[in-house]
Amino acid sequence: MKINGQPYRTIWPKPGDPTTVQIIDQRHLPHKFVIEDLTTVDQAVAAIKDMHVRGAPLIGATAAWGLYLAALTAPQTRGEAFETFVHSSAEQLCATRPTAINLAWAVEKMLAMIDVMVGFEEKISVARQAAKKITNNEAEASRMIGVQGVSLIENTAKKKRGEPVNILTHCNAGWLACVDYGTATAPIYEAHDRGIPVHVWVDETRPRNQGARLTAWELGQHGVPHTVIVDNVGGHLMQHGMVDMVIVGTDRTTYTGDVANKIGTYLKALAAKDNGVPFYVALPSSTIDWAIRDGFEIPIEQRGGEEVKYIQGWHEGEIKSVLLTPETSQSANYAFDVTPARLVDALITERGICPANEKGVLALFPERKR
Amino acid sequence: MKINGQPYRTIWPKPGDPTTVQIIDQRHLPHKFVIEDLTTVDQAVAAIKDMHVRGAPLIGATAAWGLYLAALTAPQTRGEAFETFVHSSAEQLCATRPTAINLAWAVEKMLAMIDVMVGFEEKISVARQAAKKITNNEAEASRMIGVQGVSLIENTAKKKRGEPVNILTHCNAGWLACVDYGTATAPIYEAHDRGIPVHVWVDETRPRNQGARLTAWELGQHGVPHTVIVDNVGGHLMQHGMVDMVIVGTDRTTYTGDVANKIGTYLKALAAKDNGVPFYVALPSSTIDWAIRDGFEIPIEQRGGEEVKYIQGWHEGEIKSVLLTPETSQSANYAFDVTPARLVDALITERGICPANEKGVLALFPERKR
Repeated sequence: MKINGQPYRTIWPKPGDPTTVQIIDQRHLPHKFVIEDLTTVDQAVAAIKDMHVRGAPLIGATAAWGLYLAALTAPQTRGEAFETFVHSSAEQLCATRPTAINLAWAVEKMLAMIDVMVGFEEKISVARQAAKKITNNEAEASRMIGVQGVSLIENTAKKKRGEPVNILTHCNAGWLACVDYGTATAPIYEAHDRGIPVHVWVDETRPRNQGARLTAWELGQHGVPHTVIVDNVGGHLMQHGMVDMVIVGTDRTTYTGDVANKIGTYLKALAAKDNGVPFYVALPSSTIDWAIRDGFEIPIEQRGGEEVKYIQGWHEGEIKSVLLTPETSQSANYAFDVTPARLVDALITERGICPANEKGVLALFPERKR
Repeated sequence: MKINGQPYRTIWPKPGDPTTVQIIDQRHLPHKFVIEDLTTVDQAVAAIKDMHVRGAPLIGATAAWGLYLAALTAPQTRGEAFETFVHSSAEQLCATRPTAINLAWAVEKMLAMIDVMVGFEEKISVARQAAKKITNNEAEASRMIGVQGVSLIENTAKKKRGEPVNILTHCNAGWLACVDYGTATAPIYEAHDRGIPVHVWVDETRPRNQGARLTAWELGQHGVPHTVIVDNVGGHLMQHGMVDMVIVGTDRTTYTGDVANKIGTYLKALAAKDNGVPFYVALPSSTIDWAIRDGFEIPIEQRGGEEVKYIQGWHEGEIKSVLLTPETSQSANYAFDVTPARLVDALITERGICPANEKGVLALFPERKR
């Protein structure tokens, strides 16, 4: 997608420099646009753990490039030392964040490719090709989610006869969470680009405010009309017919249709159900967990309480962190919640739209039938 | 309640100075404790409008004292000039904020008393007595809400055999929203003071963070264990059995049991219903609207979008306001939502606990039967 008219992805190999991978350091958005060079796996680990990058698909792609950097910088004294370094790097990458399934998925895929090759140069070369492919595949999956999902917006637009379709989204499941296009935003960008009038209610998404910081910024850069709201507002808007549909992303989806997504998603799904507003989840199949039947088995990350007690914002040309609570108050910080399939009207995947249940998912992905 | 061990109310006539009413200027909490002098009705209007004070019962009490200040400073040239000043002051006070019913209720009560007296001195004297009485009555109603509601906590505590009762609350329906004790917090303080172990999940309550700023502070001052969470978390906690009950306040309740309260309350009520967690609303009868049958007729205040785009916090010994969104993004700011009676398990009033429906409410307030 474009930033100031210039096309970007969220991660890319630095042109003309095979030792460096570049990312947008999203911690500074929307206030500053910062590109960061990654040259070691430790830097990739830090980028995921400290959320320079975030979003399930982008975490997967960053882990893949991290493993490329691991292969590139591994000791080439003996095969064993190389392998030990790469495998312990893989473990380090997998340990960064627990909820997104794409992380383990990308790392396993990379390891399998690297392990099968014999020479050091071949291992490095295949790692680079595999990371590139994972990244391109994520971008293509996002593009296809847009192509598949746009019909839902188009159909609503027809009923609204020229009035904008009001779409509520939570957190950032935009192109900044992916490699390009986004998941929840992909159908929105596709609709906007086709001239269908859309307006997006952007949940600010406390505690880290990915909605207010990232979704609002990327929609603004692409010219999509949007309004930032606090996370408390969605129910009221739905009660008053001001939301035509909800589209969110997901960090992990069971093959039975349960959805682990940013904390607060479940509350919006309840409000959507209570008001007859369609609730859609957009996802590349890389975020489907084929091993878990019950969403409540998905591990939910707990992050530091200081993300609740302090907030960052822009003040006099600098990003400042301000204290919101009494100094001595405790805080708790659960990063995700699980929305049960019964509250999800449909899943939007790169292969098409399906009901959020085992039968629906397996109809789109028949190769997964056991 | 106590601040640093010293008993306070939220509003009081300045001792030894009949021209001055004092309030806690709550905009500075929890970072600074500031007492403000009010000597004119314009200052009282500003205190309500700009939220130096907030919370339905306290808004009512402040309006009452504001009308006392109006009477005190009204021109005493002719009866007509006095009356015009007082009545236009009443209109000004009523126009400050639209949702809390206590405001109009207190102002009408004051006007009736002032109008009935003949001499200027008598009018002023009755205004002072009436304001004092409204304030004391609010404090007493809050105290009684605690006495009535504590049984709900006590019964749960018995089942939990010594484990703390986990209570979730939204916004500040604490003593800072009232004159003393609070509404939602009154049963909590009563339980705590009786030695029943309680723990409070405090919703931070964006956009103005009354939970993180005020509820956390007053619970901390009184020694009640509590944990601040973002507004997105409650559903997850309820899904995992970590909330035993929800208690919230209300800015206006219909006699049929619909509840207008701080934006986001509806979402928590939905989650409570979905997880079988009891959802209670605590209120003095002064917040019951006896004229409205359907909660969706209650006017919902929209405030400035800058309350969403900017947030205030403590940084290097000062309260700073930081920007959270892209400079150019729009924002919308609905201050309240309506929780339909079907989601409310019971109302806790100063006269007792009743089901949230017309029959239940009228059984407690039979004098309102028509």
